[in-house]
Amino acid sequence: MILDKINKAGDIKHIPKSQYDELAGEIRSFLIEKTSKAGGHLASNLGVVELTMALHLVFNPPRDKIIWDVGHQSYTHKILTGRKDNFDTLRSFGGMSGFPKRKESACDCFDTGHSSTSISAGLGMATARDLRGANYSVISVIGDGSLTGGMAYEALNNASNLKTNFIIVLNDNTMSISPNVGGISTFLSNLRTSDKYTELKQSVTAGIKEIPGLGKGLYNTISGTKKSIKQAFVKGGMLFEDMDITYLGPFDGHDVEQLIRAFKSARRVQGPVIVHVITKKGKGYKPAYENPSKFHGVDPFDIETGKSIKKYKGITYSSVFEQTMVKLGSKHQNLVAITAAMMEGTGLSSFAHAFPDRFFDVGIAEQHAVTFAAGLASQGYHPVVAVYSSFLQRSFDQILHDVCIQDLPVIFAVDRAGIVGADGETHQGIFDLSYLNAIPNMTVLAPGSDEEFKKCLEFAAEFKHPIAIRYPRGSAYHAQGDVSPIKPHKAEVIKEESRVALLALGSMVETSLEVHDKLASMDTQSSVINMRFEKPFDTDVINRMAKNHEVLVTLEENISSGGFGERISTYVMDNNINTRVLRICLPDGYIEHGDVPSLKKLTGIDADSITDKITEFLAYEEQT
Amino acid sequence: MILDKINKAGDIKHIPKSQYDELAGEIRSFLIEKTSKAGGHLASNLGVVELTMALHLVFNPPRDKIIWDVGHQSYTHKILTGRKDNFDTLRSFGGMSGFPKRKESACDCFDTGHSSTSISAGLGMATARDLRGANYSVISVIGDGSLTGGMAYEALNNASNLKTNFIIVLNDNTMSISPNVGGISTFLSNLRTSDKYTELKQSVTAGIKEIPGLGKGLYNTISGTKKSIKQAFVKGGMLFEDMDITYLGPFDGHDVEQLIRAFKSARRVQGPVIVHVITKKGKGYKPAYENPSKFHGVDPFDIETGKSIKKYKGITYSSVFEQTMVKLGSKHQNLVAITAAMMEGTGLSSFAHAFPDRFFDVGIAEQHAVTFAAGLASQGYHPVVAVYSSFLQRSFDQILHDVCIQDLPVIFAVDRAGIVGADGETHQGIFDLSYLNAIPNMTVLAPGSDEEFKKCLEFAAEFKHPIAIRYPRGSAYHAQGDVSPIKPHKAEVIKEESRVALLALGSMVETSLEVHDKLASMDTQSSVINMRFEKPFDTDVINRMAKNHEVLVTLEENISSGGFGERISTYVMDNNINTRVLRICLPDGYIEHGDVPSLKKLTGIDADSITDKITEFLAYEEQT
Repeated sequence: MILDKINKAGDIKHIPKSQYDELAGEIRSFLIEKTSKAGGHLASNLGVVELTMALHLVFNPPRDKIIWDVGHQSYTHKILTGRKDNFDTLRSFGGMSGFPKRKESACDCFDTGHSSTSISAGLGMATARDLRGANYSVISVIGDGSLTGGMAYEALNNASNLKTNFIIVLNDNTMSISPNVGGISTFLSNLRTSDKYTELKQSVTAGIKEIPGLGKGLYNTISGTKKSIKQAFVKGGMLFEDMDITYLGPFDGHDVEQLIRAFKSARRVQGPVIVHVITKKGKGYKPAYENPSKFHGVDPFDIETGKSIKKYKGITYSSVFEQTMVKLGSKHQNLVAITAAMMEGTGLSSFAHAFPDRFFDVGIAEQHAVTFAAGLASQGYHPVVAVYSSFLQRSFDQILHDVCIQDLPVIFAVDRAGIVGADGETHQGIFDLSYLNAIPNMTVLAPGSDEEFKKCLEFAAEFKHPIAIRYPRGSAYHAQGDVSPIKPHKAEVIKEESRVALLALGSMVETSLEVHDKLASMDTQSSVINMRFEKPFDTDVINRMAKNHEVLVTLEENISSGGFGERISTYVMDNNINTRVLRICLPDGYIEHGDVPSLKKLTGIDADSITDKITEFLAYEEQT
Repeated sequence: MILDKINKAGDIKHIPKSQYDELAGEIRSFLIEKTSKAGGHLASNLGVVELTMALHLVFNPPRDKIIWDVGHQSYTHKILTGRKDNFDTLRSFGGMSGFPKRKESACDCFDTGHSSTSISAGLGMATARDLRGANYSVISVIGDGSLTGGMAYEALNNASNLKTNFIIVLNDNTMSISPNVGGISTFLSNLRTSDKYTELKQSVTAGIKEIPGLGKGLYNTISGTKKSIKQAFVKGGMLFEDMDITYLGPFDGHDVEQLIRAFKSARRVQGPVIVHVITKKGKGYKPAYENPSKFHGVDPFDIETGKSIKKYKGITYSSVFEQTMVKLGSKHQNLVAITAAMMEGTGLSSFAHAFPDRFFDVGIAEQHAVTFAAGLASQGYHPVVAVYSSFLQRSFDQILHDVCIQDLPVIFAVDRAGIVGADGETHQGIFDLSYLNAIPNMTVLAPGSDEEFKKCLEFAAEFKHPIAIRYPRGSAYHAQGDVSPIKPHKAEVIKEESRVALLALGSMVETSLEVHDKLASMDTQSSVINMRFEKPFDTDVINRMAKNHEVLVTLEENISSGGFGERISTYVMDNNINTRVLRICLPDGYIEHGDVPSLKKLTGIDADSITDKITEFLAYEEQT
């Protein structure tokens, strides 16, 4: 195995050219094998094997800084920087992260997770280098999808002004390129980066225009939401050149030696430079190559068939959303749906298919998604904005400023709320209650089961104000018996006993039923309340429970500050209610990657930990 | 007066062409007179008089929708839609807003205030129109500065894909244009929007290229942070055309009849169209024309001299920031400063002058500003990001995801925190404690006086983690005596008495001293604590005060949810401390425009209201 010789950063430089292809093959087999067991991001990683090899053959991390936009495509980078033995713990609790992490390696110079941050971060690093008078390369690797995010563009604008040396590798993975055009571009690019670049520029540009059909025929299979942005950015690199950013490319992203020449050329350019690289997601593994979207993020799978081997119990919340949205779309002609490049992930495919005119994928553009929704709502439509909790953080100002000041009827379907698991710190949906609670005119709901989620969506479709429904990743709890009808700001009393009142929010309803049984086995009575409405919450039920229980226990999958527990504590304090409040929530800190049960245990929000906390609390109270 | 004939939307259509210039002159005189008394936005409004007249001569609000980006340039629009008599109450409490407000007029179709939202909102409205099969025009008016905001670009990308009829008026107010070029462009634009547009497009494009020097000589005086974006967007409209957005212009923004022709042409275009209009800020009033930046937002002024007639007592917080930053810049060579197009407003001019290499104006790009800072911080620099509280809402995700996960030393100078007054709902800085408290690894400080603010900045310059300092708009309180040294997470006890403990944050320190005196006059003793650190707060001082006071009164200029009072209430509840908490904070709602004292009274956070609440509380407690 050539891979055996790669044990730290720089080792790849000792591999002879003749073995590059073989090494790429070994890396691909390794990635397929490891992700088939651990799950993870596969298609994007298979697409950048040669690109990453070439970066490491030309540059010298950790001295040179490589920033991976989003970061889920950094597996080969991890292999080439001495971490291949850690792949057995990939994304597992206490193991290696699936994203770049500064604390994991000096070669990971910036933590990423959300889209479109790499140009800003890289520009900051390049600027720091210049201020210090140092001399190293800074390379931001960004996908074409991430370029639809507005902050990438804010950064390009700033890069253009600062004129610092800075390399942006545009990893373009949805356009194909015909071989001869590739050859011509390589030739042109070589010309354009020669020492005579400035002199030649004019004649080369003229030359391009004279090649018959090249202007229009350069790319094919441009489609979907990325079309216009691509046209603007990459058609001969015109926009980049207009912004005083040198454009090199396009290059074949699976030809290591061509990429090496490209990166060496880029290193010689004065000022910011874009290296446009064409890659194919899923390359080298047929199921992923043919269906890169399915193999974006995968559960463990069978290598032979590509089929997932993980079994989900019951239905997921995203599937409930998918089914319910189609029904609501038929019933409510003014209902429209908006996604920020997450049609499949959020479960909007069926709605898009059934109501193509009323479905909008705006690209990775959460800010625009929300204000676009506000515009639709101002004219009588009822938009559902489906975004993951951690990505909706990008829209905080738009929710506050464009939707809620005007009290517009927009429904926020906040998926992946709470602990999401293997994707780690950047993806945990543990802040949404805090940032939504702070916004006036906002109503926040959290269903505890599949059926209740359906009813919440039906309720929202009739609601005339901003409303957010938060629900977790993965399987939905299926409650026994009927779910009570949704009444504005009213909780559902599931069990009414005494002593301990469990005030549960969303996923914590299921957990509270477990806690109830555990307490019962210790002869401690408890009531279980599904709060359902988090903002505004049901004050009647709080007042009533406070009267005949020793303690109100609030339960939520959200950070402490600004969350549900703080609000209940404050309510009790404000109104001088004679009761105690025990808050079960997430501590003030980020939560790393791992399986959800381990993370819940770690943060003390699993049924066992909660039961222990309650029994300790009661014991202490009896003592004092 | 021609203006006497303008009493409702549409009235301008009865004014003969020959009187347009005279009307424009009357509107300018009116604007100058009214803002000289009320204060407000002057330069930008003087720049769009003819532009607004032309829009109202061609289109029919409220049927047609005009969205004003940012919205401070909507004064002429207000005059032309029947609100000129309300200008005597402009920006005053209970009076007319300085921004578009749906509840003020049907002709204000979308509330604005923050930058770069108008294309998203307009696209939503145009899409709603198409879904409904209706037929009206949607026009977003956006300045060239607002185009540097990423969400404008996200929206353009989406507009390009949706291909709906939609007019974007680019109000370009910093480039000048020579008359003959304007004429040529008008000619070309006419050609390009004729019915034969598609056929002619190719030959016209060829035609442009043949005009000697036009490609480069079209514009002059391009400078500053907007240069590259302008080059990219408007050089012959190339980018727009690449995005399948028709480009018309540039037009002389002070020629009503030329603008009328332009807008009529735009209305005939299929799909999205950009109308590029060149205007001059401050036109018609010499002091504003020569110094548009000073006359952007003004206090009442003397018309003759242009000099402000409002007197500030003492020094403003922004001035303290300005002076201190220069001192810190000398002492700390790794200190760098970043602004998002607010160099003067935030008080960074002196720093920029003293340390030009360490000063960065990134444009209206708050998201990029923060992640750019994170990049600098990751390489050993210590960035100060100076942004107004309400605009920093745009960076919530970047603070959380790019700065705080990696625990990077970035200083956030959060100006205009608390009630800001006349700019109203969109500009009140009343959410920052809530959104910053929710972010792990963040430290939040709130100084109560000028001297303390200096010390907070000095403390922050030595601090190795993310830290935010929030401070209000306007005059800084000057405390008598020395300010105690800043010790990590420690409060300052200003007066230690008994019964009522006033736990004051920031601006509330001054208010608390007033409350103390008012209570003293009623023989009620009170202690005054300057909390200084809001996150994490001084638990020792809380524990101590709880022991020998009847009530802890928390005082803050922030919304209730997630704020300081909630955190103190929760702390008391969590730790079962035997005391009561009375929270003085802002209610869960938006706060309209008006003078700050009136708004404080309205929301119950002025010294009188607070004293009343405390005495009521004590009386009630004694009763029960």
